[in-house]
Amino acid sequence: MSHADDRDALSQISANKCFGGQQLRYSHPSPTLNCSMTFSVYLPPQAELHSVPVLYWLSGLTCSDENFVNKAGAQRSAAHYGIAIVCPDTSPRGPDVADDPEGAWDFGLGAGFYLNAGQSPWSRHYRMYDYIVSELPRVLAKGFPLDTARSSLSGHSMGGHGALTIALKNPRRYRSVSAFSPVCAPMQCPWGKKAFGHYLGNDQSQWREYDTTELLRANPVQLPMRVDQGDADGFLDEQLKTELLARACRETGYAIDIRMQAGYDHSYFFIASFIEEHIRFHAGHLQAAGAMASKANAIIDTSAPGNNR
Amino acid sequence: MSHADDRDALSQISANKCFGGQQLRYSHPSPTLNCSMTFSVYLPPQAELHSVPVLYWLSGLTCSDENFVNKAGAQRSAAHYGIAIVCPDTSPRGPDVADDPEGAWDFGLGAGFYLNAGQSPWSRHYRMYDYIVSELPRVLAKGFPLDTARSSLSGHSMGGHGALTIALKNPRRYRSVSAFSPVCAPMQCPWGKKAFGHYLGNDQSQWREYDTTELLRANPVQLPMRVDQGDADGFLDEQLKTELLARACRETGYAIDIRMQAGYDHSYFFIASFIEEHIRFHAGHLQAAGAMASKANAIIDTSAPGNNR
Repeated sequence: MSHADDRDALSQISANKCFGGQQLRYSHPSPTLNCSMTFSVYLPPQAELHSVPVLYWLSGLTCSDENFVNKAGAQRSAAHYGIAIVCPDTSPRGPDVADDPEGAWDFGLGAGFYLNAGQSPWSRHYRMYDYIVSELPRVLAKGFPLDTARSSLSGHSMGGHGALTIALKNPRRYRSVSAFSPVCAPMQCPWGKKAFGHYLGNDQSQWREYDTTELLRANPVQLPMRVDQGDADGFLDEQLKTELLARACRETGYAIDIRMQAGYDHSYFFIASFIEEHIRFHAGHLQAAGAMASKANAIIDTSAPGNNR
Repeated sequence: MSHADDRDALSQISANKCFGGQQLRYSHPSPTLNCSMTFSVYLPPQAELHSVPVLYWLSGLTCSDENFVNKAGAQRSAAHYGIAIVCPDTSPRGPDVADDPEGAWDFGLGAGFYLNAGQSPWSRHYRMYDYIVSELPRVLAKGFPLDTARSSLSGHSMGGHGALTIALKNPRRYRSVSAFSPVCAPMQCPWGKKAFGHYLGNDQSQWREYDTTELLRANPVQLPMRVDQGDADGFLDEQLKTELLARACRETGYAIDIRMQAGYDHSYFFIASFIEEHIRFHAGHLQAAGAMASKANAIIDTSAPGNNR
């Protein structure tokens, strides 16, 4: 069965040629999240010939799968390096998905924090961690010419937190991780305390499972890691706390490339300015296909139908 | 007086560092359009050191000054070549500006067609031609380190029509012109007939003043000209009519580079894919500073305060 046939299980929302490849958008029923989900995937031109590695982009608060697709200009570098970019949504969606009771933008819809909620009513839908790590790779491997064993993670703000925590919890599953303006220590900032309190309850041991600085101290497996942070970012001091990430890396000896970028803010203009460097960083790790990677492929995705399309 | 002081006459809406330069957005009272107008300008890093040439980008139906800024990814090339990009809005704006009586998106607000309307009630505000050619360059030369004597034009769809017609009417004022998916012959398509009928009335001689194929036949002065058109563009046959532009150029001997791009549609994903080539094309013409250009500078803009900022 070809990838195109497998894709019939998905509903295509749009398809636009872009830099010789295809910018695609789909919806699909998600058993993990118990709702219909939308994602975007950019297939570079190389995907016409063979399966390509995957960079997952996790967006920030209030975003959907579309912000990065429209604003980052990443398709250019993805086409150059032959990497697919997968953009999931930032939370479960739909009229029966619980939201912040006051409609705040920093919690609930658009603010899933890439974790598995354990508290009612959130646990019914808010399982973005499982969706990103397990369900979405299976959907992608069935429907597209993607080598999901070669995967890396990147993201912005809340999505930078998502990329770093998911990578740290699965250092052999992903080849590299990067982040723009990540929420580095959610246990120590207002966004994170609010979200974790609702989604995870009061047990701080569960909070530590989704906090980059805590995971760094617990997990000795090194993964290539890069962070860019604008020093004119209005969220830096109160919410992002890059200095706590730097300190955790220093104290544990975890190698990381943190760059403070002078004059840049929290916007997509910052992301656009440096996304080419991030994609080049990931390409270096994604395109080194070793025996271990092939083995991992066989273990992770036994349904992968090969390179036909 | 520095440029920064002159800029006080403008209201800054936003400023974001981008590719080492500044993506800026301003509003200002426009005597030409008899309303308040918003524009965006990207200043490349070179503008910190000396005045830079200008590429005007004219957007299409329903757009504002923001679409190109957010979606085209053009700042990267503009920074590389040291070119400012100015994005005006697509029509006059405000509660007292007449709009399509049925609120249609192809006429009125967001659809100024870059002409001077002669018919009531449109003539009170809809004078986008004068705004782009005369008022905006004066505002820019006063407020920013721009060498407005070195200017080129580009645009998309209705804005491609605007770029081509303005360039053809002022071939010594602009160095080069390009367009994506332009409305090539508005006198012969539904969008153009509706807009010209309302804005200009029934006198077809006035219509010819704003129709690229007619201007080409009347104007023998050659300007470097490039057009990209996607062959999967749903508007191609009924509204854009690239073949009429190609025929007019063939019959008049006007040199033009028209490229039909296989599989591309009318979206910004198409523009993003080829904007780098357009900016490189314009850079070649904008950066050749000759004696004639300096003379033109003195004639056109006697108030230009030099290179200080």
